[in-house]
Amino acid sequence: MAAIAGFRTVGAKRPGWLLRGLWDSLPARFCSREPARVARPEPEAPRQGDGISRILSNRKQSVEGSQHCQIPLAPATVEQNLRPLCLGGDDFGTAVTCPFCGGGSHVSDSKCGGEGETNQGKEGGKSAYVSAEGPVFSSGHDLKELTEEQGHDYHAEVFHTCSEVMMLIQNHPVPVIAMVNGLATAAGCQLVASCDIAVASDKSSFATPGVNVGLFCSTPGVALGTAVPSKVALEMLFTGEPISAQEALLHGLLSKVVPEEQLEEETMRIATKIASLSRPVVSLGKATFYKQLTQDLRTAYCLTSQSMVNNLALPDGQEGIKAFIQKRKPNWSQ
Amino acid sequence: MAAIAGFRTVGAKRPGWLLRGLWDSLPARFCSREPARVARPEPEAPRQGDGISRILSNRKQSVEGSQHCQIPLAPATVEQNLRPLCLGGDDFGTAVTCPFCGGGSHVSDSKCGGEGETNQGKEGGKSAYVSAEGPVFSSGHDLKELTEEQGHDYHAEVFHTCSEVMMLIQNHPVPVIAMVNGLATAAGCQLVASCDIAVASDKSSFATPGVNVGLFCSTPGVALGTAVPSKVALEMLFTGEPISAQEALLHGLLSKVVPEEQLEEETMRIATKIASLSRPVVSLGKATFYKQLTQDLRTAYCLTSQSMVNNLALPDGQEGIKAFIQKRKPNWSQ
Amino acid sequence: MAAIAGFRTVGAKRPGWLLRGLWDSLPARFCSREPARVARPEPEAPRQGDGISRILSNRKQSVEGSQHCQIPLAPATVEQNLRPLCLGGDDFGTAVTCPFCGGGSHVSDSKCGGEGETNQGKEGGKSAYVSAEGPVFSSGHDLKELTEEQGHDYHAEVFHTCSEVMMLIQNHPVPVIAMVNGLATAAGCQLVASCDIAVASDKSSFATPGVNVGLFCSTPGVALGTAVPSKVALEMLFTGEPISAQEALLHGLLSKVVPEEQLEEETMRIATKIASLSRPVVSLGKATFYKQLTQDLRTAYCLTSQSMVNNLALPDGQEGIKAFIQKRKPNWSQ
Repeated sequence: MAAIAGFRTVGAKRPGWLLRGLWDSLPARFCSREPARVARPEPEAPRQGDGISRILSNRKQSVEGSQHCQIPLAPATVEQNLRPLCLGGDDFGTAVTCPFCGGGSHVSDSKCGGEGETNQGKEGGKSAYVSAEGPVFSSGHDLKELTEEQGHDYHAEVFHTCSEVMMLIQNHPVPVIAMVNGLATAAGCQLVASCDIAVASDKSSFATPGVNVGLFCSTPGVALGTAVPSKVALEMLFTGEPISAQEALLHGLLSKVVPEEQLEEETMRIATKIASLSRPVVSLGKATFYKQLTQDLRTAYCLTSQSMVNNLALPDGQEGIKAFIQKRKPNWSQ
Repeated sequence: MAAIAGFRTVGAKRPGWLLRGLWDSLPARFCSREPARVARPEPEAPRQGDGISRILSNRKQSVEGSQHCQIPLAPATVEQNLRPLCLGGDDFGTAVTCPFCGGGSHVSDSKCGGEGETNQGKEGGKSAYVSAEGPVFSSGHDLKELTEEQGHDYHAEVFHTCSEVMMLIQNHPVPVIAMVNGLATAAGCQLVASCDIAVASDKSSFATPGVNVGLFCSTPGVALGTAVPSKVALEMLFTGEPISAQEALLHGLLSKVVPEEQLEEETMRIATKIASLSRPVVSLGKATFYKQLTQDLRTAYCLTSQSMVNNLALPDGQEGIKAFIQKRKPNWSQ
Repeated sequence: MAAIAGFRTVGAKRPGWLLRGLWDSLPARFCSREPARVARPEPEAPRQGDGISRILSNRKQSVEGSQHCQIPLAPATVEQNLRPLCLGGDDFGTAVTCPFCGGGSHVSDSKCGGEGETNQGKEGGKSAYVSAEGPVFSSGHDLKELTEEQGHDYHAEVFHTCSEVMMLIQNHPVPVIAMVNGLATAAGCQLVASCDIAVASDKSSFATPGVNVGLFCSTPGVALGTAVPSKVALEMLFTGEPISAQEALLHGLLSKVVPEEQLEEETMRIATKIASLSRPVVSLGKATFYKQLTQDLRTAYCLTSQSMVNNLALPDGQEGIKAFIQKRKPNWSQ
């Protein structure tokens, strides 16, 4: 809890969802359709030392009796679930502020090290994925936290914290993959849109239904508006209606859609592939990609040309070239 | 007419298309293909008080004998057709300057109030859609207005006015839906790209054919280049050739394509859904979405977090939350 | 060679790929899959005076024995292959600096005039396409050029030069079309993403596999990140795995996919259509499109409205309007 306290500077009052259950049972009205009934895949056995951080929520019952499994971003479980994300440090200029302890660069830092589902080991993870078990990937904020009794400052803190967590993903040194099997709504849809890569089963769907309860999904709209064309984002935001996984793929919210039974296999295949590569090279590349994305063309090429030169100066940059020329497998530094 | 005069400050000379027919019959050469022959759906009966503004053109014959129905943006009929768009005012910081009278905030303002196709009533509309009856949604500017005899200042006024109308849609407080059943070219294609949501029948097509007549569709290219990938926009702009409704959906120009016989039903379904929601919440959300869209990620999250806090402070924000918790239907203020 | 020397100001040392073969044989490991085995179409007979610049590489054997045909951007053949791109001048404010001689405005300039594959004639080309013969469109940089022995300054020059060539395409006064039939990787994928229009056979694929050899494709990521949604770009960049032509079309990297046997016909159809139009109008339109693309909506409309007024003041602008009104074919100035 001390770790969390370090982050909380906006208000004295702590949001309830940092203390107790969140994203509780939702009446069907909140979302336009019933969530798809999906069979629960067997949770995979933890594997050690594969460099992949699993951020998996499998709470089968919330504090208030919901049978829905919750998203991994549920702030009540955020310390447990998202702890892997603050491992990894700020190599190569990727300044990461951990929202749970306020610090950066936590490689091998036992103060913020994760147990349980995380398998990063001392060297830090090389890729990460977030997922939930069950028919709901995430259903967003707890509306009970947002009544007028809670007050303006408290509301501000809720959205500020959520935004920081979303930005953390982009600023994080390793690729973060969303693995979706079910309904992702509001901040859950925002989480999918905020991940670097998103893979979903063909039974998944995505919505920003806040408008149905008089609370326009404006913060989810940031990530959604970046991921999909404006017309698609606005139809979702204005109507609150879900789009299917195929539509989400068509419009850029997902990078891949697979049958449900292949979802974990495909996600693991991508995560494993990334984990087989050089972590410094991938981290540098990720930071550079997001940095150039908002620049004009000439500035973007200046930044990225310099980044490629820096990449070549890394030990793994030269190891990769040598291995290629010598027709052997490279031995990465990490 | 006094209402129009207030807006016209650029030049003393009034464009002919504010006085008489526009977008007249086009030789087939102007567009690469003949417009699809589509059956005309029966015009719907006007409905009162449903909160949906219909901006419908059903002119069956233009001044110069064309059999094409015209787009609702045809400036000759702009006062009649687009009047609903200047209803609604500038609640929540969405400053709207009405291009027809130069003022803003026209809720219940009889000086700029619409009759005929508009059904907004005193409380202002809650959603709007623009459409045309017949095989041509819009074929853009009247080239006869653009000869050298008209002069530089006049040309400048034509494009300035058209651009203002396009920006009006984005700045308008309620969602504007394009309902397309036929060919939308040049400024007509720009109109579709400028609407918040766009639904089309599968027989529709879209083109920016100005290059065929030596006038590159640069202003339509603004909206088109925002809506679709650059390669798609440039192929359309460079060749003047149309894309199909399915291609338009694939590339983000449309949010939905339906069979022709379902077009009005689907559009009305979306418009009705939006009209059932809180107008202040939707208006705030729309303004916030466009505002954040061009900001960097951190600024976008600052803006939107603040907007969500403001949303919660609205009467309808709290009513929505309360209704949700009390498991009842919300009663919106408007 | 003097022409090349004019451009080389960054370092005294000349990259080897300006002197000798490049993009040589690649072990299968570099790319995740073997390139598709595609039949070679018969090279088309050179046509004179059709206004289309062909930038075609048909080297069947590289210096080091590769059987792969190379991309047209291969810098060893850049003087020969890309010479057409520096024809055309900087009409209408499109300032083009030729990377091969350092100058601009080379219409009819014999110092930088092309023979062989270029068919521009004295009036300059009106459209251009780049392509390669064989199963590999382009496989990017020569890794042997990027060892630590070459040094930091040399590496900087390599990426600087490549970036300049990519930007040259966007700044070039005529539309440049990529015609892809095979595998386009790394800088080859970047080339496709940088062209104005891209047409590919259904057997083509696209990858940014640098991460496999410890060199993240950050400069290709600039063009890729502009062309496709971030999630798609990042999955390609993080995994190095290829996407199919259909996926590339879905996500905006291509504007068209056709069966292999129709590839040249379709590309030529587009190039011929553009070449039948007014070159000044197309050039002005292209420059304006890219200029407005990064501006806010109001600035974009100011720029483009002014551009349309300027377009109308061009001889071809008025000729087009007159021909349209008089129902005759326009006679363009060029």
